[in-house]
Amino acid sequence: MVEQKSFKEETYDVVVVGAGHAGCEAALACARLGLETIIFTVSVDSIAMMPCNPNIGGSSKGHLVREIDALGGEMGVNIDHTFIQSKMLNKSKGPAVHSLRAQADKTDYSMRMRQTLQNQEHLTIRQAEVSEILTEDTDCGMKIVGVKTVSGFTYHARAVVLCTGTYLGARCLTGEMITHTGPNGLSAATHLTQSLVDHGIEMYRFKTGTPARIDGRSIDYSKMEEQFGDERVVPFSFTTDPDTVQKEQVSCWLTYTNEKTHEIIRNNLDRSPIYAGIIEGTGPRYCPSIEDKVVKFADRDRHQIFIEPEGIHTNEMYVGGMSSSLPEDVQHEMYRTLPGLENAVIVRNAYAIEYDCINPMQLKPSLEFKKISGLFSGGQFNGSSGYEEAACQGLVAGINAANKLLGKEPFVMDRSESYIGVLIDDLVTKGTREPYRMMTSRAEYRLLLRQDNADLRLTKRGYEVGLISKDRYDWVCKKEQLIEQEIARVKEIKVGARESVTKVLEKYGSIPLNTGASLADLIRRPELDYDKLAELDPERPDLPEEVREQVNILIKYDGYISRQMKQVEQFKKLEKKKLPVPFDYDDVSNLRTEARQKLNQLQPESIGQASRISGVSPADVSVLLIYLESYYQNNKDQKHDA
Amino acid sequence: MVEQKSFKEETYDVVVVGAGHAGCEAALACARLGLETIIFTVSVDSIAMMPCNPNIGGSSKGHLVREIDALGGEMGVNIDHTFIQSKMLNKSKGPAVHSLRAQADKTDYSMRMRQTLQNQEHLTIRQAEVSEILTEDTDCGMKIVGVKTVSGFTYHARAVVLCTGTYLGARCLTGEMITHTGPNGLSAATHLTQSLVDHGIEMYRFKTGTPARIDGRSIDYSKMEEQFGDERVVPFSFTTDPDTVQKEQVSCWLTYTNEKTHEIIRNNLDRSPIYAGIIEGTGPRYCPSIEDKVVKFADRDRHQIFIEPEGIHTNEMYVGGMSSSLPEDVQHEMYRTLPGLENAVIVRNAYAIEYDCINPMQLKPSLEFKKISGLFSGGQFNGSSGYEEAACQGLVAGINAANKLLGKEPFVMDRSESYIGVLIDDLVTKGTREPYRMMTSRAEYRLLLRQDNADLRLTKRGYEVGLISKDRYDWVCKKEQLIEQEIARVKEIKVGARESVTKVLEKYGSIPLNTGASLADLIRRPELDYDKLAELDPERPDLPEEVREQVNILIKYDGYISRQMKQVEQFKKLEKKKLPVPFDYDDVSNLRTEARQKLNQLQPESIGQASRISGVSPADVSVLLIYLESYYQNNKDQKHDA
Repeated sequence: MVEQKSFKEETYDVVVVGAGHAGCEAALACARLGLETIIFTVSVDSIAMMPCNPNIGGSSKGHLVREIDALGGEMGVNIDHTFIQSKMLNKSKGPAVHSLRAQADKTDYSMRMRQTLQNQEHLTIRQAEVSEILTEDTDCGMKIVGVKTVSGFTYHARAVVLCTGTYLGARCLTGEMITHTGPNGLSAATHLTQSLVDHGIEMYRFKTGTPARIDGRSIDYSKMEEQFGDERVVPFSFTTDPDTVQKEQVSCWLTYTNEKTHEIIRNNLDRSPIYAGIIEGTGPRYCPSIEDKVVKFADRDRHQIFIEPEGIHTNEMYVGGMSSSLPEDVQHEMYRTLPGLENAVIVRNAYAIEYDCINPMQLKPSLEFKKISGLFSGGQFNGSSGYEEAACQGLVAGINAANKLLGKEPFVMDRSESYIGVLIDDLVTKGTREPYRMMTSRAEYRLLLRQDNADLRLTKRGYEVGLISKDRYDWVCKKEQLIEQEIARVKEIKVGARESVTKVLEKYGSIPLNTGASLADLIRRPELDYDKLAELDPERPDLPEEVREQVNILIKYDGYISRQMKQVEQFKKLEKKKLPVPFDYDDVSNLRTEARQKLNQLQPESIGQASRISGVSPADVSVLLIYLESYYQNNKDQKHDA
Repeated sequence: MVEQKSFKEETYDVVVVGAGHAGCEAALACARLGLETIIFTVSVDSIAMMPCNPNIGGSSKGHLVREIDALGGEMGVNIDHTFIQSKMLNKSKGPAVHSLRAQADKTDYSMRMRQTLQNQEHLTIRQAEVSEILTEDTDCGMKIVGVKTVSGFTYHARAVVLCTGTYLGARCLTGEMITHTGPNGLSAATHLTQSLVDHGIEMYRFKTGTPARIDGRSIDYSKMEEQFGDERVVPFSFTTDPDTVQKEQVSCWLTYTNEKTHEIIRNNLDRSPIYAGIIEGTGPRYCPSIEDKVVKFADRDRHQIFIEPEGIHTNEMYVGGMSSSLPEDVQHEMYRTLPGLENAVIVRNAYAIEYDCINPMQLKPSLEFKKISGLFSGGQFNGSSGYEEAACQGLVAGINAANKLLGKEPFVMDRSESYIGVLIDDLVTKGTREPYRMMTSRAEYRLLLRQDNADLRLTKRGYEVGLISKDRYDWVCKKEQLIEQEIARVKEIKVGARESVTKVLEKYGSIPLNTGASLADLIRRPELDYDKLAELDPERPDLPEEVREQVNILIKYDGYISRQMKQVEQFKKLEKKKLPVPFDYDDVSNLRTEARQKLNQLQPESIGQASRISGVSPADVSVLLIYLESYYQNNKDQKHDA
């Protein structure tokens, strides 16, 4: 229950600062776990706003959304209700890189999330700017005790989750024009950074950007390639009935930059705030501005540009791939060089936005600050980029804030469990000096971490956390069992070299059998799959599509998957070797100086994490392993192989 | 066509600055009249935003919306599509004060208007802050030639309409907390005021305010009086089919302040920015803050407070009647003293907002600046208050901007034609030193200026302007004819003292006839009306409801209406006596000094307008009339009785 001490202070269990994609997940998680939660936003109208691209998911980001869903987060459900086009990307490639992406109606997306928050029990929304974090010194260091708002109100809380996005000390830049606002002309948050600095938190200054929005009526679509959604839409959430997401979809459009575009950009680089040295912040390497692309890939004679609707309640079109901080006049000129945009009318200019964020190496894998007990953070504040990256961190930070108050162990996923685990491990172990974006190539075990099996990987974790219902968990257990049984069965079914078999195989251009083979052997052939072989399998049970899909993938990629599972075993061994925290690495005499410094600074939680720190060599890891044996011999009460 | 001279300048016919309720009407009017129009907004997401009360219409404001509709404006159509409750107010009183009020879904209202603008031919929307007006000196004084934006872009235009609302130099105040933002945390417009001052425009500083928004879940509605919508909803727009607006409606709720509320407010007055002298701006007399009400009506032991939904996509509730700039802690305390709000959770604080506006006496009745040809303005920038007051000025300013460019006469309505005419005449003739709000009592001829006959009064004007279709105008002409014919007919129909008549009369508690009477005589009886007497009128033609309503009103209030029409004739005589503009009143020797000064300053367009200037006495008017006779004798080429 909310306790009201006076009219200038209130007490909650958890305070969440910021109601973007990270803050919404954090707040919903805490409230759903029964904790009295308050979420602050500078504008209730901008809850779950999408200030940049109008889509959710995409390569590797689709995986994140599926994982968020399997853990009991909201993003997948929200986009399933508000998408206007949906597409499974990379379907011609292997299942590891299949990725779902949906175009959102931005307004609907934001409104539905706001309503979800508003209807959530134990959750209070307040429009106010948080200006200070409040801490107390204890024997074990600093702990959070609440926050203060600009109006001088105190909100006592045992846990605080910071999800300030791009609002902290924000300024927007379009050429020479600079405004001290957050995204979309909203007020920046101007006070909190100082309070964080005063608490010894190391801040970074990052920048990101967004392209112009164009009046759809001014576009000649006949000069572009139309991009359709999938005929049969697959929902993001494992709880969404696929039949409910089949609807009329809108199109996106593909066009290209050309030499003329690049020439205009090159001729005006001196007026770009980045190249003129006005922007201090570091931009996202994997989501560069068009001027960055033109400079860094000088040999490319064109770049793909996607024209995407901002929603069905507006005619504004997003120019995907062409974010910029060039001056307005250059923008008018350069956008119009694109086929189809010759008469483009810009409604909103592209701009870059600079903001304060943290060095994420100050965080534990639970996203709690090492230095301040009870203070968590997620999203762009942690140095990431992207709605999905933000949302998954918000969810993990929220779960951990709740777990802490509920006396439960931290919720940490390792790199073999989920993309979210990879993302967080990357941030907290390797840090980032530029807005961090998820990519499939970052995941070592990506054959295991598919978007299609996120439920099988993570529903149990979500159930243990308390965000997944018993029914939902039971179904996943049942599904797992059905998959295993069916795989065992098709491995047993023998198919002879009969004429009827040859006929079926020939239908799919597959070589006839000389001798007998198992059904599983045939499924492994590239031109065949589980469903195609139904005719040869009269005893086949009637299984749901999601089960059949897993059976097919697991048999087809059996060899690769087994190999990766062995690698994971090796990996897990090192992850399980826990390091004491805090620990003084100066005691370990044979470590190289750089390794010692980095280890002291980062305080990794396991040998595995230590091994991934840049500057810690395999030799250092061996030294650590040897040292650790004797350390735990001498400190038997401590956990070793957790 | 839009002309593009370079990438730093564009040419339009008309520039509209600001996309609130005034700006939207102005821009739509200009574009619909075929002029290439560009509308600037600090945020495309805030087009037609409703930053204060969640309703359109209400006493006298309902009249304005009907008049806007009859002239071809958008507000009525927009609310008909997006209302969530509708009620005809004051139905127990005479038809002159009947007023329609509809609760809006704020998001839907704003989105639909944005879409209307986006789909309007000849209209371009641009998100940018206008920082300067551009003028040229000519032989006849200054004329507008365009505007400049913060980014240094020039937009050439032959007419500019300023509708900056509460954004100019805005700051928001909640107790000691001051932020330099526009409404709802949006960026203020910080540059334009200086440019206006540099052009010799006299600026005022006004303030207005809004109450807190409360989480609907925290309200105990059982302690409040439920306020339902009408069973049969009447649309605002004369073009809306009444059948399309019958739908499920939401409720509003009535509660009251009490002594405890007032005590808290009185005890904290020293912390109110108004009473502490921090606010410089003048607030609206007829929409005062709760602290103003408590101070000014100290004998009142309670005030009505209406709890109204902000929409159906949100659970935020508006606390109508309780706007405030008291500090946040006082707000928390005071709102909770109201029955039903004991546990109220505030989502957004109440705040006061201060902004720059003009002395509207600098405007002609066409809303063009006297000093700068081609510069028009509307809405809160002109010193008014309220969405409807803004919209109708925007419409008139837009029409006049268009008329000017099309070489047509200014579009001016006098006080006998419309509430809009009254409002604009009040502003430009009497000026205002506080946000001006429309009221039925401001209209001298309010028996003629009813909301039910706005179409009969104004459709012709809208048709002449070019915003009303021929079909729509033809129908109004036809309707007028049907009304006249039917009135003539019921005046002719004689009813005897027969038993069958007596029976009908008794049914309605009406005294039996002794002798014969006309049907019209019976209609005049308070307990009877046109529809009730159908049984006595077998020859009655089948007429639409809107015709029957007019027949009934015109017969019932025949005497009063005739009297007021005679007054209007007198009034029109003085309005028609045009004064030369510009004119040096020092030439009129018998005027009192004060009158001479005021007349020189205001430069009225007619004797009528001159007579309404404060400081011009009836004696001065007589002097003027005599002088005018000889003046026009000597200047025969000039218009006299226009």
